[in-house]
Amino acid sequence: MYSLQFTAESSSDGMVERDFTVGEIPGVLWSPVSGADRAPLVLMGHGGGNHKKHQAMAGRAKLLVSGCGFHVAIIDAPGHGSRPRTAHDEQEIAVMQRAMAAGEPVGPIVVRYNAHLAEQAVPEWQATLDALQELPEIGTAGPVGYWGLNMGTAIGVPLVAADPRITAAVFGLHWPEALAEKAKQITIPIEFDLQWDDEHIPRESGLALFDAFASVEKTLHVNAGRHKELPRFEADSGARFFARHLRRTVMSPV
Amino acid sequence: MYSLQFTAESSSDGMVERDFTVGEIPGVLWSPVSGADRAPLVLMGHGGGNHKKHQAMAGRAKLLVSGCGFHVAIIDAPGHGSRPRTAHDEQEIAVMQRAMAAGEPVGPIVVRYNAHLAEQAVPEWQATLDALQELPEIGTAGPVGYWGLNMGTAIGVPLVAADPRITAAVFGLHWPEALAEKAKQITIPIEFDLQWDDEHIPRESGLALFDAFASVEKTLHVNAGRHKELPRFEADSGARFFARHLRRTVMSPV
Repeated sequence: MYSLQFTAESSSDGMVERDFTVGEIPGVLWSPVSGADRAPLVLMGHGGGNHKKHQAMAGRAKLLVSGCGFHVAIIDAPGHGSRPRTAHDEQEIAVMQRAMAAGEPVGPIVVRYNAHLAEQAVPEWQATLDALQELPEIGTAGPVGYWGLNMGTAIGVPLVAADPRITAAVFGLHWPEALAEKAKQITIPIEFDLQWDDEHIPRESGLALFDAFASVEKTLHVNAGRHKELPRFEADSGARFFARHLRRTVMSPV
Repeated sequence: MYSLQFTAESSSDGMVERDFTVGEIPGVLWSPVSGADRAPLVLMGHGGGNHKKHQAMAGRAKLLVSGCGFHVAIIDAPGHGSRPRTAHDEQEIAVMQRAMAAGEPVGPIVVRYNAHLAEQAVPEWQATLDALQELPEIGTAGPVGYWGLNMGTAIGVPLVAADPRITAAVFGLHWPEALAEKAKQITIPIEFDLQWDDEHIPRESGLALFDAFASVEKTLHVNAGRHKELPRFEADSGARFFARHLRRTVMSPV
């Protein structure tokens, strides 16, 4: 088991930002400035082509950290952010870009490539969560959430299916082909985002993935608009979802 | 044009409740205790078999009045609450109850009966809104919302299609057969609720009605559960939706 090494620390706007590594995996942990009190943790998965400190990640983290007093951790996915790309990564990205440029469907390529990345990312997330739970301000008793759309869903669905420590999750914007069987194993509360006019993901595909979750409590938020037009108020909604589900659990004092 | 007559007034829990009539139509107006300042108005339509002061109505009114400082008005639908039932009402209700008891589909009966009620209810709502806008604390300059599920959607969709004073609406839990053509005329922001395991309304039917709205901004909230199991947090969501859309409009001071 790898332990967590902090490599940089700064703070601004009510959040402490600590870069870390777990083995070779680079990550960032955002926490309330007020500090050392044990608080729930939300893991966030970034989208394809993005990285752990993309502004969408920092924006959602602020809602959870400043708004809810939670910790938020993100790691760079394989081949993303500050991590090296393999020859296989380069090849898949080139195939995807050619399909985009030719106006051909990217779904089958994204599904295949993201499933490949998830095979590596799931054990990386589990090792990271092991290490994060060694920190006194997180611990093993507190609830853990997961929030990831796009590629964050492709990695998050198999992660949540595999790891019972995660008790609430926000997913969305992905295809069912590689994920529906894993989703059928998931029973925790889910919020799922889908774009009604998504130029990449057919409506029936998005609805089929939502339908696959075995959760008794699951909510689907559909908005008019294209793939990248998810309204900003869905970030507020995601934060409220975690506030509702993670605060329920009684936290033991440090 | 009928003017509005107040017939009773009470207050509790931060809300002033005033019963009123507009001609033969009985209604209730809930307002902030703080008073006479002009504020946005939300019209609420109750569900089939219910009435203007059903607890679901009072609960949503509290969110809008105490939480947002809005006025909320509800009238009894034809044949509902303190209004007389016609022989036709009695007959349709009996047909519906027989279908329920026999486990037969109630959709076609509800669609037909609600469309019949809406023909009478739409001009009643418009006369009521005319009269409400004569009140100094409401006026004609302020924004107006509409919130109605079930039968409240069957009446609200044709109302909103007919009345340009209404600028944001929450609908849900109905069939498209009598409503989709009207929905295609509606372009204001919409939030729409649908139950994923509704024993009366097939998924495709609910999705088809959501799809019909011409609104650029429309959001669908789907929750796991049967027809009557809409989660309570959707009431909070509806109130936030109106806070977002009705507060945008600059109100002129009284």
